[in-house]
Amino acid sequence: MSTASDGTPIVTAAVLVIGDEILSGRTKDKNIGFIAEYLTAIGIDLKEVRVVPDEEDEIVAGLNALRKRYDYVFTTGGIGPTHDDITADSVAKAFGVSIDIDPRAVAIFKERAPQMELNEARLRMARIPAGADLIENKVSAAPGFKLGNVMVMAGVPSIMQAMLDAVAPTLKTGTKMLSETIKADARESEIGTPLGEIARANTDVILGSYPYFDGQGPNTNIVVRARDAQRLAAVKKAVEDMLVVVKAAR
Amino acid sequence: MSTASDGTPIVTAAVLVIGDEILSGRTKDKNIGFIAEYLTAIGIDLKEVRVVPDEEDEIVAGLNALRKRYDYVFTTGGIGPTHDDITADSVAKAFGVSIDIDPRAVAIFKERAPQMELNEARLRMARIPAGADLIENKVSAAPGFKLGNVMVMAGVPSIMQAMLDAVAPTLKTGTKMLSETIKADARESEIGTPLGEIARANTDVILGSYPYFDGQGPNTNIVVRARDAQRLAAVKKAVEDMLVVVKAAR
Repeated sequence: MSTASDGTPIVTAAVLVIGDEILSGRTKDKNIGFIAEYLTAIGIDLKEVRVVPDEEDEIVAGLNALRKRYDYVFTTGGIGPTHDDITADSVAKAFGVSIDIDPRAVAIFKERAPQMELNEARLRMARIPAGADLIENKVSAAPGFKLGNVMVMAGVPSIMQAMLDAVAPTLKTGTKMLSETIKADARESEIGTPLGEIARANTDVILGSYPYFDGQGPNTNIVVRARDAQRLAAVKKAVEDMLVVVKAAR
Repeated sequence: MSTASDGTPIVTAAVLVIGDEILSGRTKDKNIGFIAEYLTAIGIDLKEVRVVPDEEDEIVAGLNALRKRYDYVFTTGGIGPTHDDITADSVAKAFGVSIDIDPRAVAIFKERAPQMELNEARLRMARIPAGADLIENKVSAAPGFKLGNVMVMAGVPSIMQAMLDAVAPTLKTGTKMLSETIKADARESEIGTPLGEIARANTDVILGSYPYFDGQGPNTNIVVRARDAQRLAAVKKAVEDMLVVVKAAR
């Protein structure tokens, strides 16, 4: 955990998406946006995302870069029963720990699906790096795991979401980032200069400007973000006042 | 451009998504999947994606890491008229070149939207690093640009897509990666071992296994990928034959 200049506790995270299918475009990722929104809501700042292929060197390098820099790393994908599921082994390699079939994971399989044969493929899903805690979930018998500050989760969205629900209560969180969205009813280029002045005068608050097309043409959402509710409200009011002035001058 | 061990030309790329709004979860990215599918279709292999915040140091570091490693880098976001649009300046810094208002971009604004005042905010969108080629597009008067091997594009999907259409014909491409998807009608854990044997016997072909839930329960898509159509067909047949054997043994 780190702290802002005013002492506000800040917890940071990164997401590492593992999967050839995302990079080929065959599968459209639905996990990044879900995790981003989830972490923001519980008071963890997502600072970086990387998507890497199903290649051990790439997974190890990406994971080691991210886990040293951020409080938490969440990985998605590559923990199934097939030959291309190499995440657990790659995580063990990144941490320099051994990996083997974990009796706790085997016990979950036996309890949850006693009719299914524990064949070689299913036992592959019970391979857990030494020292990891399991992340059980309600959707699948195959667990994710937490090793150090790294949460290893499934790629299938429904399973990933269940794992996130399971692990979230164990995480430290910081002061939540609050946000307000103001629909400008103006083009970005019309408000860019006065908005920039407000941003420079309030560097403790994050001001974002997001253009989009609505039914009438170009419009803009202005997003004000701050951890302090009073500062958020003050800057929101400054933006609203600015918009009144801009529109009056049309 | 690099070549595979058999001499097949391979062109690689990375995507750098720039935007606090993606990391906060407020905006769900639609560009990664689109670019991934687009590049695959024209014969460019997307090898890595990073999402970074609207912070100059992060953009510069991410861009420099990616542009040295891959044939092309495509950035999205941060080229609008507001204070948080810092991509063009960050790209100039990464390349160590100057940046100023570009007469070619100003000319486009004047031609496309002669009724609109060229205020400070709009002129910000005409800031282009020295040595860059403009990427015009049919949706917005504000151009993207190409500097060295980096394509700088808008974050709004409709504008980004128009820019990709504009720049794609100028790019070198490799031998296309072909793919076939086989619906297994089996759980991953049922086919994991024989599928892994096929993968080990055909290391020139990429075999992916993707579990999903259909109406009946767990199912699996097996994706075969290769640049050689005959090898693709041969391994597809091997997978189909394997599935017949597995199901006969049920």
